[in-house]
Amino acid sequence: MENIYISGTGYWKADEIVTNDELVASFNSYVERFNNENKLEIEAGAIKPLGLSSVEFIEKASGIKTRYLIDKKNCLDIDVMKPVLRQESSENISILAEMSVHAAKEALNQAGIEAKDVDAVILGTSHSARNYPAVACEVMDELGIEGYGYDMLIGCSSTTFAISNAYSDIASGLANTVLVINPELTSPHNDFTLRDSHFIFGDACVASVIQKNSTSEHRVKILDRKLVTKFSSNIRSDFGYLNVVEENPRDQKDLFFKQNGKSVFKEVCPMVANLITDQLQAANLEASDISQFWLHQANSNMCRFIMTKILGTSDYDPKMAPMILGDFGNVASAGSLLSFHLNNHLEKGDKGIICSFGAGYSICSLIIEKE
Amino acid sequence: MENIYISGTGYWKADEIVTNDELVASFNSYVERFNNENKLEIEAGAIKPLGLSSVEFIEKASGIKTRYLIDKKNCLDIDVMKPVLRQESSENISILAEMSVHAAKEALNQAGIEAKDVDAVILGTSHSARNYPAVACEVMDELGIEGYGYDMLIGCSSTTFAISNAYSDIASGLANTVLVINPELTSPHNDFTLRDSHFIFGDACVASVIQKNSTSEHRVKILDRKLVTKFSSNIRSDFGYLNVVEENPRDQKDLFFKQNGKSVFKEVCPMVANLITDQLQAANLEASDISQFWLHQANSNMCRFIMTKILGTSDYDPKMAPMILGDFGNVASAGSLLSFHLNNHLEKGDKGIICSFGAGYSICSLIIEKE
Repeated sequence: MENIYISGTGYWKADEIVTNDELVASFNSYVERFNNENKLEIEAGAIKPLGLSSVEFIEKASGIKTRYLIDKKNCLDIDVMKPVLRQESSENISILAEMSVHAAKEALNQAGIEAKDVDAVILGTSHSARNYPAVACEVMDELGIEGYGYDMLIGCSSTTFAISNAYSDIASGLANTVLVINPELTSPHNDFTLRDSHFIFGDACVASVIQKNSTSEHRVKILDRKLVTKFSSNIRSDFGYLNVVEENPRDQKDLFFKQNGKSVFKEVCPMVANLITDQLQAANLEASDISQFWLHQANSNMCRFIMTKILGTSDYDPKMAPMILGDFGNVASAGSLLSFHLNNHLEKGDKGIICSFGAGYSICSLIIEKE
Repeated sequence: MENIYISGTGYWKADEIVTNDELVASFNSYVERFNNENKLEIEAGAIKPLGLSSVEFIEKASGIKTRYLIDKKNCLDIDVMKPVLRQESSENISILAEMSVHAAKEALNQAGIEAKDVDAVILGTSHSARNYPAVACEVMDELGIEGYGYDMLIGCSSTTFAISNAYSDIASGLANTVLVINPELTSPHNDFTLRDSHFIFGDACVASVIQKNSTSEHRVKILDRKLVTKFSSNIRSDFGYLNVVEENPRDQKDLFFKQNGKSVFKEVCPMVANLITDQLQAANLEASDISQFWLHQANSNMCRFIMTKILGTSDYDPKMAPMILGDFGNVASAGSLLSFHLNNHLEKGDKGIICSFGAGYSICSLIIEKE
């Protein structure tokens, strides 16, 4: 079988940075107003008061310091507490396609190829903007790509699973060059009024070119893939087209992102560490053969737990497991590849692991090597 | 490369059949009441009267005679005109997973394998029930399948594209056996108050087992795949998670399935005929080498147009291009494979084509052979 490479990567982020200070100031104003407006009911025990957030709480719980949001003003406005976006319609390019095109251009440029060289576009995301037509087709149209494309969904592993699908299509002879795009517009589905999660997400997009026979200086060879999913509702959103016909309609906010964070930590971390350990063993590699790990960027404590379990020690150089979470927040499936894009220090012959994990549950680990 | 087969197929359909007579009686009652209630405004020219439907109109326009719906009573009740379904939550199996499990069991049985033999589950649908966790993971859990799974979306080509993905994963060495499932619960997204489309859709699900080295008597070898997508908004739904944050919120019904039927006919039919003709030529085959064509079941006139263009004559045995549309209506991406499942008359050495087409636009044609 011929060698298959990630030959270029690119990204998009929202324009506006939001600090924890700004987010906490907004959230606490919202809480104080709520508690004040409901003072009598709270005193009577009919309503629970809302708790305040703090920069310290956010940083300890997650490691996140800033994030980029598509509509900072409205997300921080206590009368709105959500982004307000233009209407999606056939008259305009969709927002997800716009993010994707931006990231794709950088990836094509790094790979040293043009849109006409691409045979297929696979769009993987944790949040599909619409059912049809697939956003992948729209991106092809915007970039002038002929071939085939589709959208796929597997939570925060959507980027690595999509790269795996690209690899399979190339290895099977269906395509030579596949553009993978992963728009993650998370803020519309984040409830900015919830203390335990209002700080988690950021808006971003990554793109990658998967090719055989690349000559790009950025190329890394994909040596191995390992994918697993195991059903859990501990990370769940029930938003979908069936809501419209439910016998007991729910408030939209009940359908947003919900997480049982403690269970996720307890269940997913060992799964990830074991999967990578098994994968290394099957590939006749030691953990010490891996120069860098670009892990899913959901929580710095999760990453530390996983690295410690794989390496057998918590005493490792932070450069081995670069964290972009502090700057970007959790950008869903884009996190592990964005970490790779911004912090790839592999030298010739070095090996690395890009590993996603999240809703599904889903895990995908890719062993790569710099040629 | 080893041979890769469709080794078994299965399906689910909704329990209740709805005839054109029943549908037209309900629709016309709705129209008459609307026109009566708005009599003054209609006479003043402020509101346009609604037009009546008829069995003749439906059969001439589409070829559809009956369809199966998940909630006949409410779809025909002029005070409801939509299905009313149980609430989706982590407490119950989702409706799409339930349909999928039913179809999957038949496919596994035909293939002569058990759930434990399956390495992956790919769920392709034109309507995703939720963003996460992927319904594919839930189906794996229900059936006891270990491995990986994900959901994918490419309109009415979701079944054939998912089969192609399964083929790629097997050919690339990632899996030996993949279960493909395609639940199409169309009625919740169909506006039963629109004369031009109220009759089109039915609820169904198909499943298929894609394997290397099958010994199933039902197996057909996949000889070739050809996929293409070309962006169009002529079949479109803008329903999605971004609706919640749009600056000008819309009525849910504006976000349902919309189609510019004439443009779709004019643009898609020649694309499909040309793609199949090119595919046959590249495979050194003539149209006369193909014993049966199982085409996407959207419209009998489209199928006749495509067959006539491929064969060069409209004088062909109807068994060559089996139609299940009359009985089932348009069951979205499940149509072409359901036609194959119910009407596969290939004998040893015979070749056939399974071809989907629809929103995206998207087309996928699979050449198969009975061993």
